[in-house]
Amino acid sequence: MSASLTQAMADLIVVFYKYSGNEGDKYTLTKWELKNLLQNEFGESMNAAHDTSVVEGIMRELDDNKDGVVDFKEFVVLVTAVTIAANDFFLDWEKQRKT
Amino acid sequence: MSASLTQAMADLIVVFYKYSGNEGDKYTLTKWELKNLLQNEFGESMNAAHDTSVVEGIMRELDDNKDGVVDFKEFVVLVTAVTIAANDFFLDWEKQRKT
Repeated sequence: MSASLTQAMADLIVVFYKYSGNEGDKYTLTKWELKNLLQNEFGESMNAAHDTSVVEGIMRELDDNKDGVVDFKEFVVLVTAVTIAANDFFLDWEKQRKT
Repeated sequence: MSASLTQAMADLIVVFYKYSGNEGDKYTLTKWELKNLLQNEFGESMNAAHDTSVVEGIMRELDDNKDGVVDFKEFVVLVTAVTIAANDFFLDWEKQRKT
């Protein structure tokens, strides 16, 4: 499998609308939609998403304009943060492996 | 094909290192590596990447800490900006289609 940048960007958009289209405004994530996204997309590693207070905390962090829902730009901030964290983890692991 | 969020995030990391590993520090993109990435990943739509001054301009924009190379965090800023622009384009198109 060869990774493609444009495919990865398209997938971010597709994943967002897969969840945002289920209730309320179809272009934004409600708390329930965000919970489903976290649980389904991060799977086992996101068991905490079963805890309503954790989802509410993430929602508050992401909902930059405080309108009670998460739009695509706010969602991309989450993706960026998690991707950078994953990359930092990989770099630390590489460094430790060498020492 | 079903889009996956974690796969998309992993692909961003894989694509970055595919190009950053070719010359100099293997964890950062030189100007030549950035040019290759833009040309190969954005293909026909990025013909401007053949123009050195365009690549230099993008490099200057991304190179936040002014060290002459683009690291993963700086790269993710580009990806985020292009993805949000693509999403805005899609929303405008949807809106126009309905009127």
